[in-house]
Amino acid sequence: MTDWPSRVDGLAEHALPLDDRGLAYGDGLFETILLYRGRPVLWDAHLDRLKRGADALGIAAPTSPDWQQDLAGLLLQCPAPLPERLVLKLVLTRGGGGRGYAVDPASAPRRISRLLPAPPADAALRESGIRLRWCGLRLSRQPRLAGLKHLNRLEQVLARAECSDPDIDEGLLCDSSGTVVSAIAGNLFVGRGGRLLTPPINAAGVAGTCRGALLAAGVAVEQALGIADIESADELFLCNSVRGILPVGRLGDRCWPVGPLTRAALACLAAIDPAFE
Amino acid sequence: MTDWPSRVDGLAEHALPLDDRGLAYGDGLFETILLYRGRPVLWDAHLDRLKRGADALGIAAPTSPDWQQDLAGLLLQCPAPLPERLVLKLVLTRGGGGRGYAVDPASAPRRISRLLPAPPADAALRESGIRLRWCGLRLSRQPRLAGLKHLNRLEQVLARAECSDPDIDEGLLCDSSGTVVSAIAGNLFVGRGGRLLTPPINAAGVAGTCRGALLAAGVAVEQALGIADIESADELFLCNSVRGILPVGRLGDRCWPVGPLTRAALACLAAIDPAFE
Repeated sequence: MTDWPSRVDGLAEHALPLDDRGLAYGDGLFETILLYRGRPVLWDAHLDRLKRGADALGIAAPTSPDWQQDLAGLLLQCPAPLPERLVLKLVLTRGGGGRGYAVDPASAPRRISRLLPAPPADAALRESGIRLRWCGLRLSRQPRLAGLKHLNRLEQVLARAECSDPDIDEGLLCDSSGTVVSAIAGNLFVGRGGRLLTPPINAAGVAGTCRGALLAAGVAVEQALGIADIESADELFLCNSVRGILPVGRLGDRCWPVGPLTRAALACLAAIDPAFE
Repeated sequence: MTDWPSRVDGLAEHALPLDDRGLAYGDGLFETILLYRGRPVLWDAHLDRLKRGADALGIAAPTSPDWQQDLAGLLLQCPAPLPERLVLKLVLTRGGGGRGYAVDPASAPRRISRLLPAPPADAALRESGIRLRWCGLRLSRQPRLAGLKHLNRLEQVLARAECSDPDIDEGLLCDSSGTVVSAIAGNLFVGRGGRLLTPPINAAGVAGTCRGALLAAGVAVEQALGIADIESADELFLCNSVRGILPVGRLGDRCWPVGPLTRAALACLAAIDPAFE
């Protein structure tokens, strides 16, 4: 349990009915949003992804004002002063009931919002770079769910358990075909021959909002990549919506300094939102 | 919300803390058990599967007496007379918290138990047989999770949504390689040339407790099967732990009467437990 405020369908609440399908089947979606000085970063991109996921699962998505009202309520519940960085977690579930896997047409989606502390600042990691390993677990390929931030995350939990070595910060994942997908909790960008590449997310993985912003800004392009492409890269970085860009310092025996394409991407993301400066 | 009794970690409770990882990631397991005249059917088989799943996910499994105590408490909360058939749903989650996908070593697993009404009796369906279709969705292949009854069930929810036609009772699923796996909520048995066959569950699907009982009794063997093997079968049935054996009456253009191997399996299962008579 947390002391941080949370809301369910707009009401201050810390618990969920046991018949919720989010618990029963992971039947829902989530977003993890950086709240910088009280302002949600890449808000539209997060709600767009949530809407895409809701459409794919056939769940009616709440409107942006619904979520904004939740956020306003959460902030009012927070003791002053507000930390500079917080995490806003949104969860949308299909709601309660239904007989088995069949959806009860009468069930209403459920909207959960929570404020959480942000992870520690990554200033040191930004210089030294984070330390990666390859995970043994291979992501399964499911085009119907690829890209979405849905609640079925056991593969990520199992992969993360492979990274208990204190000298390892994060893991890299391939899918069952051996194609590189992403890190466990972030997308992967690869500098090769002066270009910045990132794996397409069409069979496995989450299409991150920072990834989307960098692609839209034209600093990177999608390209299918294998393990050898990563290990022979000129530079590497990860990104996610809470931590921004994280240069990779080491993967196995290979070490990298922070490279010029990574510095350009850092500048690009900081220009998109000052929270990433 | 339900009027039926439920317990969380042994206490009468209808809600779950919002930080539970069962909700956040589907980080847990479940069992759906037939309660026949107050007695849980195939109890040991259900707890064995739960234990196998807990071991695979690295969750400490509660003991059988813990669950038995929950069941006794649920039954005491139930108004008399008890229906002849109920469903006992057990859920085991990794518990609360942790930072992202990493497990908090201090977090304790959470034990949820609920009583629910049983589905309507299938006497008519047992004669006419149930009506199946092939689902378009292909199950992803993940050997690390195959066989387990874990909480990541979005594929089953999506597949079930393909069966909204009132003339269809249930769907059949292949995995992404085109190999037949099971029905959405039950295992598949196929009579061919006097033998009863069932697909191995090593890349996708749930290894059902009725399936396990029939295999252990020696009435069926595992064999990899394709779509053509099913469509040209002499007879077909599904089974699951709540509904027992369900003969298949129709799949696409093909119709089947209840066959001799199905009748033998019905007799075998009834001999294993009178709840299945």
